[in-house]
Amino acid sequence: MNEPEFLAALRTLPLHPGARGLRDDAAVIGGFVLTTDTLVEGVHFLATDPAADVAWKLVAANLSDLAAKGAAVEGVMLNVPLSADDWDRGFLNGLRGVLAAFAVSLIGGDTVSLPVGAARVLSCTAIGRDAPAPSRTGARAGDALWVTGTIGDAGAGLAIAQGRAGPAALLAAYRRPQPRLAAGRVIAPHVRAMADVSDGLLIDAARIAAASGLAVAIDLGAVPLSAAYVRWRGEDRDDRLAAATAGDDYELLFAADPDWTPPPLPDALPVTRVGTLAAGAGLTLHHDGEPVPLPARIGWEHGAAV
Amino acid sequence: MNEPEFLAALRTLPLHPGARGLRDDAAVIGGFVLTTDTLVEGVHFLATDPAADVAWKLVAANLSDLAAKGAAVEGVMLNVPLSADDWDRGFLNGLRGVLAAFAVSLIGGDTVSLPVGAARVLSCTAIGRDAPAPSRTGARAGDALWVTGTIGDAGAGLAIAQGRAGPAALLAAYRRPQPRLAAGRVIAPHVRAMADVSDGLLIDAARIAAASGLAVAIDLGAVPLSAAYVRWRGEDRDDRLAAATAGDDYELLFAADPDWTPPPLPDALPVTRVGTLAAGAGLTLHHDGEPVPLPARIGWEHGAAV
Repeated sequence: MNEPEFLAALRTLPLHPGARGLRDDAAVIGGFVLTTDTLVEGVHFLATDPAADVAWKLVAANLSDLAAKGAAVEGVMLNVPLSADDWDRGFLNGLRGVLAAFAVSLIGGDTVSLPVGAARVLSCTAIGRDAPAPSRTGARAGDALWVTGTIGDAGAGLAIAQGRAGPAALLAAYRRPQPRLAAGRVIAPHVRAMADVSDGLLIDAARIAAASGLAVAIDLGAVPLSAAYVRWRGEDRDDRLAAATAGDDYELLFAADPDWTPPPLPDALPVTRVGTLAAGAGLTLHHDGEPVPLPARIGWEHGAAV
Repeated sequence: MNEPEFLAALRTLPLHPGARGLRDDAAVIGGFVLTTDTLVEGVHFLATDPAADVAWKLVAANLSDLAAKGAAVEGVMLNVPLSADDWDRGFLNGLRGVLAAFAVSLIGGDTVSLPVGAARVLSCTAIGRDAPAPSRTGARAGDALWVTGTIGDAGAGLAIAQGRAGPAALLAAYRRPQPRLAAGRVIAPHVRAMADVSDGLLIDAARIAAASGLAVAIDLGAVPLSAAYVRWRGEDRDDRLAAATAGDDYELLFAADPDWTPPPLPDALPVTRVGTLAAGAGLTLHHDGEPVPLPARIGWEHGAAV
């Protein structure tokens, strides 16, 4: 089954009232926000990625889901395999780093053995609190679509991790994503819908639109690119499409009233208007005022090829 | 690293006050109890185990940790791989069964793709509430050690799943464990320490004793065996040692005041006094009044061979 089919089947099971119909990245229960994500070696990270970076990404990806709810972090639980000593030590070092960087404490978890040669599979459950907890469903026709930071750096970093030449800053964007927790706290009370960009700007924008029963139009020319990305690859239409269909950005993508102006964000994080939601359905792209055909793949969808 | 080494390293990280020093099977946060367990194909279940039974065991093992806290179940989150269609359908059927059997709702989760041929790894996080939440640490010298149900049936069922002849009831004990949620609600307010028997009666008893700073003596002759187990294997000393060192029983093991008498349990679940806690340290066994040497392996410990 692919992911949408499996999710549809899960939705026929008894769901908790806080599960939001399994249509959101987090559940809301008794003042807490809960989210969980799994990383698989060979799927979400490379066997050659340093263990410390895998630990960072595992926790950061989950904190990013809390950021999209505007939550304060309560802590994380981890499900991790025991491995070779040097891998385990690297993992623990990366874990120490990411917990310190975002002032997160460890709540619990489970450690397991894996069969020899098995792909490493790691899960994290992050618990937040005090969250406005916007979902994907609240956008209205006419809302503006905004995104924090820059897009495409992690996708470039993945190519670099796979052997292409490129700067350390782009590689770091892939291996050490920065969950936008502080920005999420500022933004969340003002938005109508929000999610983090984990599978690609276009697919995550299309999901917000679909969940809200709307269409979305993205201006490729407005997609914020970093100076490092532009130097590495360029800023033409194809460069922008590549950025907007790569995953792992972990920026915040949100819909807000068209008259709303974003406040200054912590650490001077940029925030850019990249599109508009409208009545209807589907995703459309334009660039320099011209329509752009949708690429065959607009982002990552697990199990799509199964 | 083995599991104790890895856990010792995790304890040097910033821990949540509700994490109980990572020395318990559950954390307690704001009125909720959280626990998480991972099952690995080839380690915790066999590649030949039906997918429906894997789903059952995944959820039941986590509910068992809630039972040991005396918690009411709030719901579960799942991290599961997408697989072949028939495996996924079997998994969903088993999931529907276990959720219905214990009146549990689904809170959320994550689905992932696995590389071709990779061992399946599945995690569940269970959330409970209203829990007395006894830990392993509260036993006192002189306390009696009790266990619910019967011991060794799941270990026998594992041998049957691996090809030995044996009755369906023992196989079912391995594949469809019954978390003692209702009994846990009744017992928890009266105990000094409690845990579920997941890795084996002897090792789990030794862990309660060690966490409480005590020694524990187990009377092998008192270990409750099912009629099916006795017919299948016998009830001599070696049969009792085999039962007490097998895992996956998911019964409740608890320490209580020596003068305490257990109340009738839901579904007439038996409860048996199997040992005594005392000042000192370590695990000792006896049978028919004679000391019994400790076997080389007293239960399951993940990563012990790494």
